[in-house]
Amino acid sequence: MKKPVRRTVTLKDLSRITHYSINTVSRALRGKDDIAPETVEKIRQTAREMGYINNALASSLRSGRTNSIAVILGDISNPHFAIMMKEIESRARQDGYSSFLLNTNENGEQERQAIEIALNKNVDGIIICPSQQDESNIRYLMQTNIPFVQIGRRFEKLDAGFVICNDELGGYQATRYLLDKGHRDILMLSGPSYVSSARERQAGYRRAFKEYGLRVQKKLIREVPVTSEGCAEVFEGILKEGIHFTAIFAFSDMLAWDAWTCLQRQGFKIPEDYSLIGFDNIQSRFAIPFQLSTISSYKAKMSTTAVACLLCIIRGEQHSHEECGGLCRHVIDTELVEGETVRALPMNFTFTEEICHERHEQTRTDREI
Amino acid sequence: MKKPVRRTVTLKDLSRITHYSINTVSRALRGKDDIAPETVEKIRQTAREMGYINNALASSLRSGRTNSIAVILGDISNPHFAIMMKEIESRARQDGYSSFLLNTNENGEQERQAIEIALNKNVDGIIICPSQQDESNIRYLMQTNIPFVQIGRRFEKLDAGFVICNDELGGYQATRYLLDKGHRDILMLSGPSYVSSARERQAGYRRAFKEYGLRVQKKLIREVPVTSEGCAEVFEGILKEGIHFTAIFAFSDMLAWDAWTCLQRQGFKIPEDYSLIGFDNIQSRFAIPFQLSTISSYKAKMSTTAVACLLCIIRGEQHSHEECGGLCRHVIDTELVEGETVRALPMNFTFTEEICHERHEQTRTDREI
Repeated sequence: MKKPVRRTVTLKDLSRITHYSINTVSRALRGKDDIAPETVEKIRQTAREMGYINNALASSLRSGRTNSIAVILGDISNPHFAIMMKEIESRARQDGYSSFLLNTNENGEQERQAIEIALNKNVDGIIICPSQQDESNIRYLMQTNIPFVQIGRRFEKLDAGFVICNDELGGYQATRYLLDKGHRDILMLSGPSYVSSARERQAGYRRAFKEYGLRVQKKLIREVPVTSEGCAEVFEGILKEGIHFTAIFAFSDMLAWDAWTCLQRQGFKIPEDYSLIGFDNIQSRFAIPFQLSTISSYKAKMSTTAVACLLCIIRGEQHSHEECGGLCRHVIDTELVEGETVRALPMNFTFTEEICHERHEQTRTDREI
Repeated sequence: MKKPVRRTVTLKDLSRITHYSINTVSRALRGKDDIAPETVEKIRQTAREMGYINNALASSLRSGRTNSIAVILGDISNPHFAIMMKEIESRARQDGYSSFLLNTNENGEQERQAIEIALNKNVDGIIICPSQQDESNIRYLMQTNIPFVQIGRRFEKLDAGFVICNDELGGYQATRYLLDKGHRDILMLSGPSYVSSARERQAGYRRAFKEYGLRVQKKLIREVPVTSEGCAEVFEGILKEGIHFTAIFAFSDMLAWDAWTCLQRQGFKIPEDYSLIGFDNIQSRFAIPFQLSTISSYKAKMSTTAVACLLCIIRGEQHSHEECGGLCRHVIDTELVEGETVRALPMNFTFTEEICHERHEQTRTDREI
């Protein structure tokens, strides 16, 4: 089989076939408005049929623009990122920009490589959810002077734009909701502490306790390792230590489902045995046969705002920068979404550590049998 | 605020700072092996620190290659496509290719636009999951002579490469499993009939019935409209008609979850009231607190095979074409994944239409209260 050769259709070919001048053909294809609509239609139709491709490369060399952006995310197979990507692609396309997707797998090295690929592709700008193990990659982006916006996470101390949800508020709303339902021993399953959203959601958790005049129990705040067995390990530890809790606030819906799965394997029921609240409202995008109580982080709004900011920076427009006080720094308020996974504790409910320990022992024995 | 200008670092700048010749700097950056590793390391380090960007555009104009591909999918927020995209991006990146993502929203017009954008970007090749309302977009791709591979769906009559799972086998395995568990009245929730995978899964359903010497009941094969309320509409119709079934085979896991959600709202339980089997094994990628019985379509293998095929075509390599008999036409066998949503019917189980109707009436009344 021969090496395939792409047939190149030129303006001259189109001119010959449509019987219009090269100038008319060119103007019609570029959407100039001095050509009759029927002529434009006819020329475009022929161009499509013949597979005419304008030479975007040469045009990019002239303009210095490629009309493409790079979207650098943790892992597109995680619905949290996939929903963002859908909205980013759609919004960017409206403005004539195409989107490269690059996964970092939450790994600094792969993130650096992704940034280098993006620069190599001469993208006009980058939207990035930083992996955050350290600042070096974002510092590097700042040095290159390429327009970029962080999404979902931020480096508070760096002078770089971001669009995030109000993670502190979300953490507060989730915890406050559980406290209002009578829960006091609330296990917080947190993300890695180097991730800004994890830290800020935890700050919200602390604020809710403070408001209630209650002390936060350090042993109830657990960082879940980002391995596939991370959640199972955490629960194994908690059960061994006989730690008492009646509700769980999980850093994300994915983690909440994971926790639910772990507890279910141990024979526990949600919300009968434990109440559970997540973060992200992923189920807003697809039917799931149980409604997780959760916090909406308005991913669509975050995504379209990030694209709008990026386009402003790319185009050097002043407007939105004034709005953002010189930099794009958007914080979008979160909202509680009541599902079916939180139950109110009876008034004067006490759940001693002893009883709790007994229950765990019971379940573990069942499991061993 | 001034329009941002990207600082351009040249080979000359790197040469000045590292005290190596421009030739050495250039060879080090291009990975030529005649430069000492420490020198390469030093030059690359400086290049990174200074934000050096090689001019990929000019290089693309010389070579006619952009080292980018376009991935055109239905909807990236659907985990089915997101898992594919992750694998495609990762595999393509290994070979130095970057991936544009373009959503079609299963719409022919948006698909045509996506193809035009991809051609405009001078991508070296395209992986596409065709929306399939008609053949025109794939015919157009064939005309342009750009290397492309269809993924997940195919036009049987077109001379175009594809990588799909064995949908017929998967449909057979799912249906056979339900039949073996004693079910006879199996509702098939199918995708749109213009989609090849929907037709082929249905063919598998029919084969399993034939093998059992049973007649397929036409009224039990339902095409679910691709609207958000599609599944609910179908169930409303079925309940009104008092149609009897004990198990459901859903075209996809997403549709299975949707069906489960609909039935749950009507007060039914899975698998106590109805057995349910999906297709895709999406839960292999994230914890879900219930295990859907399903068919694994080996998305990772499909995706990496599609990229490998595309690269073969781009590079004009013969090898795999011989393997595929001149065209890339890969069909990957599916496998049954037993979950917790199928129960065996008791022997000699009969479930009269009357009882079924009564049950539905009962539930509807409950709901109205």
